[in-house]
Formats: sequence, C-alpha cells, structure tokens
Amino acid sequence: MSVWGRGTLNLSIFGESHGPGIGVVIDGLPAGEEIDVEELMAFCARRAPGRSSTATKRKEPDRPEFLSGLLDGRTTGAPLCAVIRNSDTHSGDYDNLRTTARPGHADYTAWLRFQGYNDVRGSGHFSGRLTAPLVVAGGIAKQILRRRGVEVGAHILSVHSIVDRAFDPVAVTAQTLRSVGEQTFPVLDKDAGERMIGAIEQAAAELNSLGGVVECCAVGFPAGVGTPMFDGLENSLSSILFGIPAVKGVEFGAGFDAAGLTGAENNDEFELQEGRVVTRTNHHGGILGGISSGMPITMRVAFKPTPSISRPQQTVNFQEGCACELVVKGRHDPCVVPRAVPCVEAAAAFALLSYLV
Amino acid sequence: MSVWGRGTLNLSIFGESHGPGIGVVIDGLPAGEEIDVEELMAFCARRAPGRSSTATKRKEPDRPEFLSGLLDGRTTGAPLCAVIRNSDTHSGDYDNLRTTARPGHADYTAWLRFQGYNDVRGSGHFSGRLTAPLVVAGGIAKQILRRRGVEVGAHILSVHSIVDRAFDPVAVTAQTLRSVGEQTFPVLDKDAGERMIGAIEQAAAELNSLGGVVECCAVGFPAGVGTPMFDGLENSLSSILFGIPAVKGVEFGAGFDAAGLTGAENNDEFELQEGRVVTRTNHHGGILGGISSGMPITMRVAFKPTPSISRPQQTVNFQEGCACELVVKGRHDPCVVPRAVPCVEAAAAFALLSYLV
Amino acid sequence: MSVWGRGTLNLSIFGESHGPGIGVVIDGLPAGEEIDVEELMAFCARRAPGRSSTATKRKEPDRPEFLSGLLDGRTTGAPLCAVIRNSDTHSGDYDNLRTTARPGHADYTAWLRFQGYNDVRGSGHFSGRLTAPLVVAGGIAKQILRRRGVEVGAHILSVHSIVDRAFDPVAVTAQTLRSVGEQTFPVLDKDAGERMIGAIEQAAAELNSLGGVVECCAVGFPAGVGTPMFDGLENSLSSILFGIPAVKGVEFGAGFDAAGLTGAENNDEFELQEGRVVTRTNHHGGILGGISSGMPITMRVAFKPTPSISRPQQTVNFQEGCACELVVKGRHDPCVVPRAVPCVEAAAAFALLSYLV
Amino acid sequence: MSVWGRGTLNLSIFGESHGPGIGVVIDGLPAGEEIDVEELMAFCARRAPGRSSTATKRKEPDRPEFLSGLLDGRTTGAPLCAVIRNSDTHSGDYDNLRTTARPGHADYTAWLRFQGYNDVRGSGHFSGRLTAPLVVAGGIAKQILRRRGVEVGAHILSVHSIVDRAFDPVAVTAQTLRSVGEQTFPVLDKDAGERMIGAIEQAAAELNSLGGVVECCAVGFPAGVGTPMFDGLENSLSSILFGIPAVKGVEFGAGFDAAGLTGAENNDEFELQEGRVVTRTNHHGGILGGISSGMPITMRVAFKPTPSISRPQQTVNFQEGCACELVVKGRHDPCVVPRAVPCVEAAAAFALLSYLV
Repeated sequence: MSVWGRGTLNLSIFGESHGPGIGVVIDGLPAGEEIDVEELMAFCARRAPGRSSTATKRKEPDRPEFLSGLLDGRTTGAPLCAVIRNSDTHSGDYDNLRTTARPGHADYTAWLRFQGYNDVRGSGHFSGRLTAPLVVAGGIAKQILRRRGVEVGAHILSVHSIVDRAFDPVAVTAQTLRSVGEQTFPVLDKDAGERMIGAIEQAAAELNSLGGVVECCAVGFPAGVGTPMFDGLENSLSSILFGIPAVKGVEFGAGFDAAGLTGAENNDEFELQEGRVVTRTNHHGGILGGISSGMPITMRVAFKPTPSISRPQQTVNFQEGCACELVVKGRHDPCVVPRAVPCVEAAAAFALLSYLV
Repeated sequence: MSVWGRGTLNLSIFGESHGPGIGVVIDGLPAGEEIDVEELMAFCARRAPGRSSTATKRKEPDRPEFLSGLLDGRTTGAPLCAVIRNSDTHSGDYDNLRTTARPGHADYTAWLRFQGYNDVRGSGHFSGRLTAPLVVAGGIAKQILRRRGVEVGAHILSVHSIVDRAFDPVAVTAQTLRSVGEQTFPVLDKDAGERMIGAIEQAAAELNSLGGVVECCAVGFPAGVGTPMFDGLENSLSSILFGIPAVKGVEFGAGFDAAGLTGAENNDEFELQEGRVVTRTNHHGGILGGISSGMPITMRVAFKPTPSISRPQQTVNFQEGCACELVVKGRHDPCVVPRAVPCVEAAAAFALLSYLV
Repeated sequence: MSVWGRGTLNLSIFGESHGPGIGVVIDGLPAGEEIDVEELMAFCARRAPGRSSTATKRKEPDRPEFLSGLLDGRTTGAPLCAVIRNSDTHSGDYDNLRTTARPGHADYTAWLRFQGYNDVRGSGHFSGRLTAPLVVAGGIAKQILRRRGVEVGAHILSVHSIVDRAFDPVAVTAQTLRSVGEQTFPVLDKDAGERMIGAIEQAAAELNSLGGVVECCAVGFPAGVGTPMFDGLENSLSSILFGIPAVKGVEFGAGFDAAGLTGAENNDEFELQEGRVVTRTNHHGGILGGISSGMPITMRVAFKPTPSISRPQQTVNFQEGCACELVVKGRHDPCVVPRAVPCVEAAAAFALLSYLV
Repeated sequence: MSVWGRGTLNLSIFGESHGPGIGVVIDGLPAGEEIDVEELMAFCARRAPGRSSTATKRKEPDRPEFLSGLLDGRTTGAPLCAVIRNSDTHSGDYDNLRTTARPGHADYTAWLRFQGYNDVRGSGHFSGRLTAPLVVAGGIAKQILRRRGVEVGAHILSVHSIVDRAFDPVAVTAQTLRSVGEQTFPVLDKDAGERMIGAIEQAAAELNSLGGVVECCAVGFPAGVGTPMFDGLENSLSSILFGIPAVKGVEFGAGFDAAGLTGAENNDEFELQEGRVVTRTNHHGGILGGISSGMPITMRVAFKPTPSISRPQQTVNFQEGCACELVVKGRHDPCVVPRAVPCVEAAAAFALLSYLV
C-alpha cells in the first residue's frame, strides 16, 4: 500500500514514473493553514533532478497542480490533492527490464507480486520519482509544523566513507536546520561536501554508485507526545521512512552505536535549565518510551547505493528462466542521498505532524 | 497505543508490571491452527527472567492462561486472549520514581504524557515485562508460520564490543535458526557467548549495563509478498520491532553498512539454482521494493544498555522542579539483549504472519 | 474482527460464551479519568441476564476484573483490560448445534468461516454474551463523556407492534436520558412498557420470540465534530452498532421516515436561542454532513427477534448434507431488546468518545 | 476523513465541487484486472446530472482521466488515480451561503468544523458531486466482482410514498440486477416509475424536493465471508454507505421490519437445493453473524429529500449571529434518489470487494 496514516492524518500516494502523472492525497490536514506555495516549490526543488552533477539528467519541473484542499492560499480542511504531470520520459530505455531483473532493484519482486502487470517503464510505482509527492506532503507538513514552533531539517551525514559533521544533538537550532537545507548540497562541513561530490562524480565515471546516510532532526517538538509500544514516535517515523526507496536502516539517537555503550555512558542525565527539564546529552534522540522528551528528535537513515549501474551485471530473465548479462540503460543518480535529504525531512515532518493535529 | 495490526491480523497488548496481570488479545488468527502449548511455553521461557546470571532475579513463571480463541489445542478463529498474572512484585522499590526521572528511562516522558496518572510501579506499562505477551503472540505466530514452511530465528549478534558470528545471509537454514534458539544463551560462536556473559557479569558487578544487537532471520517466506512504499515488509517489521522497549535502531540486509558500499558491491546478482531465481549475495536482506525476494529475510535490531543502573546519577524531580541524585533500586537486567532475542523473533514472526493470513 | 477503533481510541473484544472468560481491552483512554466502578457495575447490571421474566434464566454476576489501566479508581493511560469469567454454563445444551444450523443464527455461516473449528458452545464468540465487555467499555465511555457534558441514553422504542413514546428530538434532556435508564424496563410510557412485557411473556409461552427497536440519544455533544464522507458520526456509529448481535438496521434523525417527506417538511430551519444556533425541528438527528450540529444526536437501532426458539424448525445438517428438524434447547431471551438498550448506549458512547479524546 | 478502507483495499476521495477537479485514489486493487473503460463510463453516466427532468441541469461529462494504476486496459497493481475536471460551475450562485445556513444542509456544521475555511462554492467537499469518484471506484469494483461471479445491482424502491416492487430476496438473478441498471429510471415496475417521475416533477414545480429509498442487492457473493462483531459485512457496508450524502438509514434483509416480526416469522429455515444449503426465505439479507450465507445480500438505504429547495426558509447568518430568510439559488436535483442508485451500487461493490482481494 502507498497509504500511510496515523490518528486522523493520512496520505495516499499514486502514480507511475512514465504514466500520465503522480501525486498525493492528504486527508486530515487542519483547515485554515496558510501554505506558501513558492516556499513549497523551493522545498520540492531540493528533490528535483537535473540540478547538479550528482543527479540524473532527467529534467522535470515537478510543479504540482493542486486539485483540491487549497483555496486562496489556505487549506480548506478537505482532502488536499496535488498532481505532478510526467514529462521528459524515455520509456524505450526500459524495454529490456520487462523480464530481466536489475540486481538490487525491485523488478523481479514486483513481477512476482503483480504477476507481470506492473508498469515497468521507469520502474513504475517503484521509481524514486514517487518521492516527489511525498515531498509535497512533507513540505506542507513542515510549514504547518513551523507555525507550531517545530523545525525539521536534515543533511547528508555520509556518502560512502566520507562523513559530514553531525548535528549537535543537544544544541542544534532551528536556524541551523533551516540554513543547511538551503544549500544545493546540504552538509555542515563544506569540505566534506566537496569530497562527497568528488566521490560521486568518480563513481559515476566508473559506472558505479554510492550509498550514504541522511541525518534528520526536529527541534521544538513538544514534550510528552507519543505513546508506548506500537504508536510511539519511533514506530511511526520508521514506518514512513522505510517507504522511501533504497532505505535499509533507521535509527534514533545513538542508534546502533548505543548497542556498544554502557548504561553509564548512554544514559542521558536530566537537569533543569531555566526551569525546563532537559538532558545533558541526547543519546535517546529526544524519544523515551515512544514519547518525546522535549530534546531534539534525531534520526539517521541509511540509503543503499543506487542499484541501477551501467556496468554489465549477471542476472536472470525471470520470464524465460535463463541467465543473462544486463547493462542497465536510462538515467540514474549515481547516489540518491543528496536528493533523499528533503525526502527524509518530508517523511519525518508528516509523521510528526500526525501527532499534533 | 499498544495495538498493532496490518491487513486483518491485530494484536492488543495490555498490562502494567505490578498490576494484577498482563496479556494480549490476538484478533484475526486463522481457525483450526494447532497450538502446541508446551512448545509455546518453552519459547516464552526463553524470555522469562531468573534463568541466568545475566538477567534480573525476578522469578515469574509467565505461564499464560488462555481465556478465549483456543479449544482442544486449536485456534477457534475467535480472538485469542492470553493473560499472565503478575506476582513476585516488589513495588516498594519504585516509590522514589513517582517524581524522579531515571536517566534513559521513560519516567519523565510518561509523567508528561499521562499527567502523572500512569502506574509507575515497575515502570508500569513501559516495563520490559510487557514483552511477555508479545512473545506469546509471536510464539503462536511462529508455530503457524512453521506449518507454512517459514522459520524465524534470532541470536545475539553483539553485546557491547563482543561480536558473534553472523548468520550466513544466503545459506542460513531453518535448522540453524531452530537450534540457536534452543540455547540458554543464543549465539553461533560459543566462545563469543562466553565472553559476552563475562562482560555482562562484569558490568553488573560495576553497577553498569550493556547494550547489544540482535540479528533475526526468516527462511522459507514466500517470494512476491509485500507492497511498495508504506506497507512493505520493512515498514511493518520496523513498526512492530520499535515496540520492544530499548530498541533504538532497525536495519535490513546490509543495512547501515550498505551506505558504505558501492552499487557494484551491494547489488546482489541473480542466478538460477535448480530453476529457482536466487541471488548470489544477500545485501538486500530478502526484501526489494518492500516485497520478499525468496532469499532469507535478515534484520538487525539495536538495543541500548539497560537504563536502570544502581550507580548514583544526576537527575531531576520533575514534580518539584529541582535537581537531585538518584540511585535506582529494584532488580534489573544488566543487559536486556539475551532476553530480547525471543522478543525480536516474536515481533518479526507476527508481522510476517500478517501477510500470509 | 472484534476490534473497533477510530482516531486513537480502540477496543478489542475477546471471549466465547462457554470458554474461561470474556473481556475487552480499551486502548487510548485519556489518563486520570475517574471511573466509578459501582456506577459501572450498575450500568452492566442493566444488560445482565436473569433479572426479569423477559430474559434468559442464565444468572451471571458479570462483574469484571480490571487487569490493567485502572489504579486507585482512575485510568492510568495504559490499555484497560476488563475480564469477566464465565460460569453457570450448560454446554450440553449445544451438542446438536455443532452441525445443525439454527434458522436465523450464525451457526452455518460460522462453520463455513471457521471451517468447523469455532467454539459452538453457547454460540461461542457469536453469543449475545459478548456484549457484556462492550457494555463495560461503553459504561466507561459514558462516565468520561458525562464529565465533558455529554449524556447518552436509550430506551425501548418498540417491541413487535407495541410502541413507546419517542424522545423529543429537540427538547430531550440529560435528566430524561439518565432516568429512563434507571428503570428495570426502560420505556418512557409505562403503560406501553407493561404491554411490551405482556407480549414478550406471551411470545415465550408460545415458544416464540419478538423483535423491536431501541432509540438512543446523546445530548451535550459539542457542535462541529466529525468529518464528511467516511469518518462522519453516522459512519462510525453505524459501524459499531452493527457489531451488536441481531441488529439489522440503523437510522439517524428521521431516518427511513425522511424518505417519505418533502424537503419543506424535512428541512430543519435554524434559529437563534440565547445566541446559540439551534434548529426548530430535528429531522437531521443532530448530524449534518457527518458533523454534529449541537442538537441532540438521535438514532434508532432495529433488532430482529431472537432466532433461538424452541419450536420445531426445518433446517439442515450442514456437515452431513441432509435435511432435519431442529428443536433448540438452552436458555434464550424471548426478546433481546430490553437487554440491548445498554448495549446500544455503550456502543454509541464509545464511538462518540473517540471524537473527543 | 474521505478515506475508507478495510483489509488491504483503500480509497481516498478528494475534491471540491467548484475547485479544479475531483477524484479518487484506489489502493490495493489486484493487478491484471481488465477494466472496460467504456462500460465504466456507462456506469458513471448513470450518476451524471443533466440526463432527465428529475435531475439538476448542470451538465458535466464526468469523464475521468486515469493518472495511474491502469495500463493497456488492465490494473497494474499500483494505486489507481482517476481525476474528473470540474467545469460548468456557477460559483456566483453560492455567495450568500458563505455565512447563511441552508436548512438541512451541512453549511453550518462545516463552517464550525473548518472554522470558515472550507470551500463553500457548490457545497465544496460536501457536494453530492463527490459521489462521482465513488462511482468510478465502485464501477471498477463491480467489474472485478463480476469476473468473480458477483453481481451488484440496485433500483429505486420508493420516492416519497410511491413504492416500486422489491427485489425477490430469494430468487433475484444477476440478469435482473443488470437489466434494471440499464434503465434511465431504474425501477422494476415501470408504472411506479412513471408515477415517481411525475411526483418529482411536481415537487420541482412546487419548489420542493422528495426523499426515497434505494434497494441494493448482491448475488453470487461466496458464503462464509466476513467476521463477527465489527468487521462484518453489515459494519463495513454501512460505514461506506453513510458516506453518500443525504443517507439517513441503512438496513439489511428485513431490517426495521424484522423488529415487528416474531422469531417464527423472521427465521429463515434452511434447506438443501441440489446439494447446496439455502434458506427458504431471506429475512437475514444474506448475512448472519456478519458473515455471508450465500443467499442474496440485500440492503436498503434511505435518502432524505434534497435540502436545497428554492422556497423561502427561515435560517440564521451564523457569522453575524442573526436570523434571516434564505432563498437557495443554484441548480439542485428535486430528488437525489435516481442518481443515488449507482452510488449505492458503487459503495456496496467496493465494500464487498474488500473481502475478496
């Protein structure tokens, strides 16, 4: 299902990469929320392809048309539908994928699941392009959250073995979260960013691709929100984040590193700051027992390297049941991580908003 | 919410650590499934405390009473309710936690969320004890899955810096998954296990605690099951796994390591084995595009060190709004990971079953 | 499924009539709500059997044990579980129902659905007894609603052809709703009630049974709550009301009678009363476009006559595939309507509460 | 919410009457289902306005564009999105409704619910026009159901006091269900239909409107499908049917009439016909205990008279808080029932399909 919801906030994403259009219906937005469409477009542009050497050459404006739910710049309370038309499609590139499994891609599993009826052009509904409507939904959520004092931001924490400086999990500010997102290549350490770009360009030149990690943070989220067990912040955030193609891991606070710590190291001692309960450190990532503590909510999301690489690879023709060699054609990002940054922000913002409406 | 469901399979977990009882209602089980209660008890015993030096001294039989849904050893198709009575409770140990936040624990966030009305004795509904009903549900799911050819198993992959051998992600067998679970301390490398036990005992002696990682695997799960985006296997597995207390990270296949690989390294080439489509490697963890590939489904779950340690810690009395020092009393596992192994199996099994009923 | 939920409020009902016990888990109740258990027991007693000549002779105290979610008389915010033990079971009465379909009952459909593994004793999970946990949940909801100014009440509108006076849909008061519920046989017109009792006794004497209608009303529910289309008040109320066994129809406001009116007759003109917008009539039953108008919410629920009658009936043995005659044994209400009144109140209250928490 | 789902089949309806467009996303359709678009258009045309003297004069082709989920005439398994553009809008007709409540309409409750931000033009999201996407979804469901042997049909059972012949609840055939739907004015008794048309024309001439009842039936639905309590056929059917504007009552089988019967009358005796278990009568409407019996599934849906009538009515200006007289302008059906017939079929078909995929 391409439906996600909790409480009374829902989204339903539709579309296939080379069909007439893609889009999203958001149900349950509060009425009367001002949506700055130009700001939203700027946010969507962060995900759009064709901006830099690190991304696919496919150029699409990704400008949504709002069919409903928005009137005179404000939400009406009715379901909001945004549609993005597809264009600049080179469907011929995908002819050999109808029956041949790209390693690392969903071609084979989709064929099984949908008995061969799925639209394979441009990977159909499995395309990374389907994150465009998610970014529309999340961009709207971000604007509403900001009005409630919550800022969500993200950056590239790593590409392959090159690591950016992490957010300060205790002191990160809304200003930092906003400014990092305004960069074409969102990193905190510009030098690391340069090296990442170099590595991606080199991988592209070698007909290879790279993975990486996005770090995301929310500040200003009220304390005491969430519930234990299955409706906690970590449950809902992870369930939406794994909806972004290529995500293979999600962690909060110290995450997997916490597994290597002792309790004395990992426990975040509480203290009072100007009458407010805070923790000195933030290994808990702002979430304890599924409930927000008032500290920054921090998460990291691991992306695998783009599976579509143009090297010859061994694979099978699953329809004919024979081995073959495949050279993937088409235009693909040598590293999805730069464009995944707003996707992670969007998914996180949408999940967080579901607790506040 | 302590409710989890997908499709038509649901569970609702209830109880507080020192209340009259805890339990689970499972709705949507198929009718006529034989449940071997003794085998289920053996599975539950793997989570039970009081078995070894690495666990809390609290002794409870954790034997559920089945109030409904089970007749003559078979499921009736009606909701199955299992209740476990609480006993051996030392509630006095928790008096000072009513208003004082244990670092790393949910005391403060629960107080905010429930305005101080939550049952704090033994951490109430936030207690690790609430995994007992989850294990009942998952143990039932495991038996039903096995009948459908699916075996779910798990082991301790690491405690602090001590690492067990990983499952072979391509060749792991149902037999391996079963036998590792029969051990008191479930590891593949007994020597590593000995060192883990030593480290846990040492941490306990130092009034400290350790984190670790559980690796879980399912073999025999049919290929072509799951859906893209938000109802994929990774989404549903992570949303239930983060329901286990102390989990801070979940990854599938190569997970965070995939972020450090190139596409050429990470892509799993397909081949035919006896007419069956398989992959030579399994960085994808048996899941591509949210859908099972037929390869073993592999995941790793990071647990933070037990927050309840008996060293003096700085914290606050959140009701009175003042700083204080806290020494946690009560009986706590110096490392939750050994007992978490069946919890991870249970959660994974339940989520996987939801796709097959 | 015996799970119902909307927003973040859920219930999960379990149990079979002659199993060890039945009960309910309520997830999502606000914390700190005082629950007057004696008042709740008095509400449950209204549904309990064995009180009058119009009900089955089976006597059960129906006193729930609260396993969780309630501490010192207040909700803790954790899932609340209430268990009612079964007793006074005469399972032998049901032996011939294992393979023989009682006309009007779910024996045959349950056998198909659960492949014969369902517990047939006392109708198992299909028993009217399963409304006892619903009444517990609804009784709790009623107390919480009352504290928010909402009163839910119901009465017997008709038994067979004997009709009680209806609630005044404009002027009905909380006081009326409370007082009608305190009667053993809840009607507004005592004379009609006497005749209903007479008719039920006569039907019982004739080994027959009677149907009837329950009218339910909520006053004080805030205006402007609900949503259009599928999450409106009518959708959620009907979806829970049809969960009560024997319900075959649900209508709101003028309901089916509205189909026979003209717009000029049915439209409720608005006016101002002390600055408050009200309607002069209430054919809309307090709901317009799925959203509450502030007027009393009114609904009527049709119950079919008890299918279990002790006359010889023609039916089939569905296992052996042959026709046979059946005489139903066991103790059955000659009319479920009197005991259904608190069930309807309970279901309505629970659904309404889901919009306010 | 304008989202409806059960199991893994979901729909999300969006749009406002005078916005750019309306539509639906259907998630969870099986892949490979042939959709005959012309047949679907013919079904949609049954709901379209402007066909007869009994409907609004607004003319819209209501031809959906399929943005996704459909390729070469078959479902792809990805979410199917259908968009219908709005045109022929006379928004000026609605200026006085921004703050004035039409009696019987949702203007006032919507204003409360959405704080005045809802799009009031043409009733916005509350417009009967929003049933067009529901009919698209249901028309697709009907085609898939037919391929599985299930036929869903409906007719006008009554308009005001004029009553059509009812379906034979035991012997109704797929052929009858299909042929009645092919009529411009779907009734079984043409003479009754003529009188209904006369009554509607007269009501229109008198600036009045009429209510009525739609009877719907499904044959061929497999026996043994559904579950007791809250996920039964009646629960899900009613929850979607009340999503059609103007519906005030839903009943199954004998429905409210069952309340006036005795058990001996209402019980449907079982018998064998060619080895198949059937009932001689069908007061149970094909549903026992929430589960299908294999007999025709029958339901009746009550529609109130169109609230928008052009007579002067007393009402209030809710923004200024003063009484006023209102004359509703715009084009409105004097009776929604004829156009509601395919809406009821659509809603029922979609709900029934959710049990079979």
